[in-house]
Amino acid sequence: MGDQIGVAVSGTLYYVSLKEFERIRALPVSSIDKTALFAALCRINTLYMIACAGSGHIGSSFSSMDVMSWIQLNEIGASSKGAAASSLFFSSKGHDAPGYYSTLIGLGKLDFDLIHKLRRLGGLPGHPDVSTPNVVTNTGSLGMGISKAKGMIFANRLLKRPCPVYVLTGDGELQEGQFWESLISAANGKLHELTVIIDHNKLQSDTLVSKVSDLGDLESKLAAFGWHVSRCDGNNLETFSQTLAVTKTISNKPKVIIADTIKGKGVSFMEHTAIDSDVELYKFHSGAPNEETYSKAVQELIDAANERLKMAKSDLLMLETVTRPSPLLPKDPQRLIPAYSDALLAQARKNSKIVALDADLILDTGLIPFQKEFPERFVECGIAEQDMVSQAGGMALQGLLPIVHSFACFLSARPNEQIFNNASERTKCIYVGSLAGVLPSGPGHSHQMVRDISALGGVTGLTMVEPSCVEEVTRVLDYAVNSNPLSTYIRLVSIPYEVPFELPDVYQLAEGRGVALTEGKDAILFSYGPIMLSEAFKAAMKLKQDHDFGLKVVNLPWLNKIDSSWLISEVGDISKVYTLDNHFLKGGQGEMIGNAIAEQGASKITLFKRLGIEDIPACGGNLEVLDFHGLDSRDIVNCVLGNM
Amino acid sequence: MGDQIGVAVSGTLYYVSLKEFERIRALPVSSIDKTALFAALCRINTLYMIACAGSGHIGSSFSSMDVMSWIQLNEIGASSKGAAASSLFFSSKGHDAPGYYSTLIGLGKLDFDLIHKLRRLGGLPGHPDVSTPNVVTNTGSLGMGISKAKGMIFANRLLKRPCPVYVLTGDGELQEGQFWESLISAANGKLHELTVIIDHNKLQSDTLVSKVSDLGDLESKLAAFGWHVSRCDGNNLETFSQTLAVTKTISNKPKVIIADTIKGKGVSFMEHTAIDSDVELYKFHSGAPNEETYSKAVQELIDAANERLKMAKSDLLMLETVTRPSPLLPKDPQRLIPAYSDALLAQARKNSKIVALDADLILDTGLIPFQKEFPERFVECGIAEQDMVSQAGGMALQGLLPIVHSFACFLSARPNEQIFNNASERTKCIYVGSLAGVLPSGPGHSHQMVRDISALGGVTGLTMVEPSCVEEVTRVLDYAVNSNPLSTYIRLVSIPYEVPFELPDVYQLAEGRGVALTEGKDAILFSYGPIMLSEAFKAAMKLKQDHDFGLKVVNLPWLNKIDSSWLISEVGDISKVYTLDNHFLKGGQGEMIGNAIAEQGASKITLFKRLGIEDIPACGGNLEVLDFHGLDSRDIVNCVLGNM
Repeated sequence: MGDQIGVAVSGTLYYVSLKEFERIRALPVSSIDKTALFAALCRINTLYMIACAGSGHIGSSFSSMDVMSWIQLNEIGASSKGAAASSLFFSSKGHDAPGYYSTLIGLGKLDFDLIHKLRRLGGLPGHPDVSTPNVVTNTGSLGMGISKAKGMIFANRLLKRPCPVYVLTGDGELQEGQFWESLISAANGKLHELTVIIDHNKLQSDTLVSKVSDLGDLESKLAAFGWHVSRCDGNNLETFSQTLAVTKTISNKPKVIIADTIKGKGVSFMEHTAIDSDVELYKFHSGAPNEETYSKAVQELIDAANERLKMAKSDLLMLETVTRPSPLLPKDPQRLIPAYSDALLAQARKNSKIVALDADLILDTGLIPFQKEFPERFVECGIAEQDMVSQAGGMALQGLLPIVHSFACFLSARPNEQIFNNASERTKCIYVGSLAGVLPSGPGHSHQMVRDISALGGVTGLTMVEPSCVEEVTRVLDYAVNSNPLSTYIRLVSIPYEVPFELPDVYQLAEGRGVALTEGKDAILFSYGPIMLSEAFKAAMKLKQDHDFGLKVVNLPWLNKIDSSWLISEVGDISKVYTLDNHFLKGGQGEMIGNAIAEQGASKITLFKRLGIEDIPACGGNLEVLDFHGLDSRDIVNCVLGNM
Repeated sequence: MGDQIGVAVSGTLYYVSLKEFERIRALPVSSIDKTALFAALCRINTLYMIACAGSGHIGSSFSSMDVMSWIQLNEIGASSKGAAASSLFFSSKGHDAPGYYSTLIGLGKLDFDLIHKLRRLGGLPGHPDVSTPNVVTNTGSLGMGISKAKGMIFANRLLKRPCPVYVLTGDGELQEGQFWESLISAANGKLHELTVIIDHNKLQSDTLVSKVSDLGDLESKLAAFGWHVSRCDGNNLETFSQTLAVTKTISNKPKVIIADTIKGKGVSFMEHTAIDSDVELYKFHSGAPNEETYSKAVQELIDAANERLKMAKSDLLMLETVTRPSPLLPKDPQRLIPAYSDALLAQARKNSKIVALDADLILDTGLIPFQKEFPERFVECGIAEQDMVSQAGGMALQGLLPIVHSFACFLSARPNEQIFNNASERTKCIYVGSLAGVLPSGPGHSHQMVRDISALGGVTGLTMVEPSCVEEVTRVLDYAVNSNPLSTYIRLVSIPYEVPFELPDVYQLAEGRGVALTEGKDAILFSYGPIMLSEAFKAAMKLKQDHDFGLKVVNLPWLNKIDSSWLISEVGDISKVYTLDNHFLKGGQGEMIGNAIAEQGASKITLFKRLGIEDIPACGGNLEVLDFHGLDSRDIVNCVLGNM
C-alpha cells in the first residue's frame, strides 16, 4: 500500500512506440514467445511511465507483468468492458496500474499519448478508475476484488450473458479480512466463472510477507474454503499458461492460482531475490528510481527485449526517447513524518506504556526508529486495519497506551466501527492517520483522504487535531499523550511542503483555539495543516502587497472542537469569514465554524464562505490538482477579491 | 445480530434468588453436576430477564449457557477484570449478554437487583459494556473478539502478568472478515494463552448458518490457519470439560474449540432441532416470548432444574415471583419496515434490474416478501457487510440496481470504505440502513446508530434521506429508484411509533426541501423521521395550547442536502431556529442547517440551537432514554420556553 512521495526522473528516458508493439504482435512466433516479448516491452514502458510520474509501483507491476500480459493477449477480447466483453479482468491490488496501463497501451486499447500522463490531471490515475477505458472497477484499497467480481458474475448470470472473470490479487492483500470474507459465498455459489490469480511476490510494502504476517500454508487455507487451488511459477509463461488451461476444465468451483513471482522481475537489482537477507526494506515497492538507477534498469530491460528479438530472428528494438529537465523541488520543505518519528521516540522514552501498532506502512508512517529502539513495544499487524484497531482496544483495556498508525484513507474508514467500539469503552488510544488530505494527488482518490474528519466525526470522545508544521507535531503528540484523557486522532500531511509562516512565540496549544499567522482587518480565514495554511499565508501576502487588503489567517489545528468565545474574539469586527478545508466541505472544519457562527445569533458577519473539496478529488500533479480544486494561493486571492 | 422490537411479558414471572444459587453451589456433587445445575438455574433467570425487558437473545444465551457456566464456575477467578484476574473471559458475539449476566448474578458478582433491570436505564445494557462489573470489553458488533483478546494478551505479556483469555464466539459471526483477519497473527505469535470457543449452534439471526452462508469444513479452515482445533458437544459438560482440559496442554498455539450446541437449549420447543425443516425462520433468536410461551418455557426449565436437584438428593427449587401488568403499547403505530417491504415490491415489479442484498437480517430489514417473490434477484450475503457492499458495486457496474440492506449501525460503519469505493465509480446503489437512530435503546450503543450521517457524509454523490412516516417511505424509495441518478442512503427508523401528524396533501418530495407540519411564528424547528418529528409535533401542540406559543415544525427528510432559498423562505421572519437530530450533534442535519444560516450572512436570526445526542447513547427503555437525552416532547417544550 505504501505510496512514498517521489521525484520525476530527469535526463533521457526511453519508451516503446505502438508501431513496435504492432510489429511484435505480428511476429510468427508461439503465443508464449510473443507474450514474453510483449511483457518485455511493457516493462520498458512501465518504467518510463513511473519515471515521468515520479511515483508508482515498480515492484508489483513487474512481478505481475507476465501474468497480465498473458491474460491481455490470450484471454481477453477486444474490449473488457460492457456487454461485448468476452471476459473481464482487473487487478484487485490496483497499484500495479502502471503495468496494466502499459499492456493496454501496447494493445492499442488506450490512447498512446497517455503513456506520458501517468498520475497527471486528465491522464492515467495512480490507481485504476473506471473513467479510463478498459478499467473494469476502481481499486487501490485492498481486499475488495473478489467481492466485486462476485457481484459482476451474479449480474451477468441474471442478465444471461455469463463470462469468465479474472481477478489479480497481491499476497500482502490476503491479510485483509474482506479477502477471506469474500471466499465463502464464492464456493457456496459454485462460481466457476471466477479465476483468482495471486501475484505471490513474497514482499509487501514494508518487507517480506513472511516477516509482516506470515500467510502460512496458503494452499491449505484456500482449499479449506472450498476453492480449486493450483500453484505455479507466475513469471514462467509456459507453466502459467498450462496451469490456467487446467483450471478452465474445472466447472464446479471458483479457482485460485497461486502464481509464485519475483517482485521487480526483469531488472536484476530490483528483483527481491537480489536483496540481502539482512536488508529490511525492499526499495522498489513504490516511488520512482533516481536517474542513475533508471538508466541501469532500462538498459537491462532493453537488452532483455533485444535478446528475445534476436531469438525470434527479428530486428532490434526501435526506441523513442524523451529528455526531461530536472524537476523543480521545494527548497526547504518541512517534513512532518520525520518530525513525528522524533516526537514519538521522545514520548516513548518517558512513558513505558506507549506501544506502536502498524499496518504494513512502517516506513511511510515514520515508525522505523521506534521499532529499532523499542522492538518489544512495536506490533506489526500487516494489512489488517480492523484487527489492528481492535487489538489496540484490547491493549488499552489492559493498561497500555496504544498508538495506531496507517494512512488516513485506510485508518478512518476500514476500521471505522472498531474505532467507535474502542471509544465506547472510554479508554485511551491514539490514532495517527498520515497521507491525509488531497495531496499527494498522484495515487488517486483511494488514497486522497478528504472525508476522515466526517467519517470519524461522530465517534464520541475522539478529539481530532492536525498540526501545521514540524513544531506543532511535537505539541500535538504531547497533547494526545499527556493532556487528553481520552482518544485523539492526529491527522498528518505526509508530503514535504514549503511552509512560509512561523508559529508565534506566545502560541500555546489549547483545545478549540488557534493562533493568527497574519494580521488583517478586511477578512479572516481559518484553516489547518501545512498545505492549506501555507497557501492562505501566501494569499494574504499577495493581497497585502498588491491590493492593500488585510487577510487575517488563523491556524486552528482542532478539527472537531471549537471554543466559541475565542472564535468571536478572534473575528472581532471583521465581517467576512472564510474557512479553508483540506477535506470535503461536508463534515470539514468549515462546517464546525459555520455552526459556531450561526449559534452566536444575529451576527455582524456579512459573508461566510467555505473553501474545500467539493467532488471526488482529482488525480494529478500536486500543484495542478490544488489549482484544479480552487485551493492554491492564487485561487484564494481571486476568491477573496471576488467577494470584496 | 437481529434485534426485533419486543414487548415485555405480563403476568407471573419467576426467578431464582441468590440464596438458592448459594445453596446449589454448596452441594456436595461433582463439578460437572454442579455446573449443570447452575446452568439450569441461570436459564430460568435469563428467561426472566428477557421477559421483563421485552427483548434479548434467548436462543444463543441458552445454547452457550453450559459453556459459560463451566468457564465461570471452574476457570475464572474472583474477578475477571484488571490486574487481579486469573483469567479473562468475554463473549465476542455479545448478544448472549442475558445469559452471561445471569451467571454473574448467580455467582454474586453483580448486584442481584440488576436482574430486574435488563435493558433499562442504569441497569444491564442490551449488549456488554465495560461499565458493568466483570465485563471485560464492549461487544455487540461481531467479529472483534479475537483481535481484542490478542491486544489483551500482548499487554499482559508486556506488563509481565500473562493470563489465559477465553473468547466465546458465535458461528454466524465467522462470516465476518475480521474473524479470519484476526486468526493469522495469533498463530504466528503462538498465542497459547488464547482459547476461542465457537458456540456452534447452527443458526444465525435469519435461519440455518448452512442456508445463509455455509461455513463448509470448519475444522480444516481453522487448522489451516495454524490453530489447534478440537470439537465437542458444547451442551455436554463432561465432554466439554474434557476437551478444554486437553487444550490446556497445548502450549505453542492458539486454540479453538468448536462446541456443537443447540440454539434454545433447555426448552424443548425453543431448541432449533425441534423446528420443522421447512420452517425458514427460527423464532427465538431475539425478542421476548409471549405470555403463554413464557409460561410453558419456564415450566420446562423449572422441571429440569428440579429433576437435577432430585438426582442430587436436594430440596426442590424455591422460586421468587413477580407479577407484571400488561405493558402500555402504542395504539396505532406506524411501521416503516413493512411499508418499505411493500414499496420495494412495487418498485421491483416494475424494474427487473432491481436486486436486493441482505446481511443476515432478512426479517428485520423487511426482505421476506421480496425474497419470496423474486428469489433469483435476492442475495443473502451472511454477516459480511464489506463483501455485500462490494458485491453490490460489482452488480451496479454490470448494469443492475442493487439495494443493500442492513442495520444502519453496521451498514454505515463496517463497509464504510467499500461504500466510498462504489461511489467513486459513480454507479448507482441504494443503501437501506434500518434500526437507525437512538431508539430502540434496549440493544445499547453498538446498535443505536447516531453517527451514520456523519460517517457517510463525506461520500461524494451519496444522497441521504430519512422518511418520516409510512407514506413518505414510498416516496423516498421512488426517488432513490427513479429520480436520483446516483446513490442514495435511506435511513429508516425500525420501531413502531405513534405518528400524530399527517403530511400535507400538497407536499411533494423535492431535493433539499421539506414541509411544515404545524404553523407558528414564534420559533421554527427542523427535524426528520417519525420519532423526532412526532415529539416536536406534540411539543408544538402543547406550546400552542398552554402558552399560545407558535412553534413551526418542519419535516426536512434530506440529511445532507439543503436548498438555501427554500430554507430562508421557510424561516421567513422567525428569529428563533431549532434543529432536532436523531443523531449526534456532530455531523447531523442541524449542522447542515447551521451552515446554511451562516452562509446567508448578517441574518436576523437571534437564536440557533441544535438538539440531538451529545454523548454515547444510553441503553434503556425507549421513553426513558428519549427523556435522558433531552429529546422527548416535554424536553422540547422546556427548551423552547427556556429560550423565550
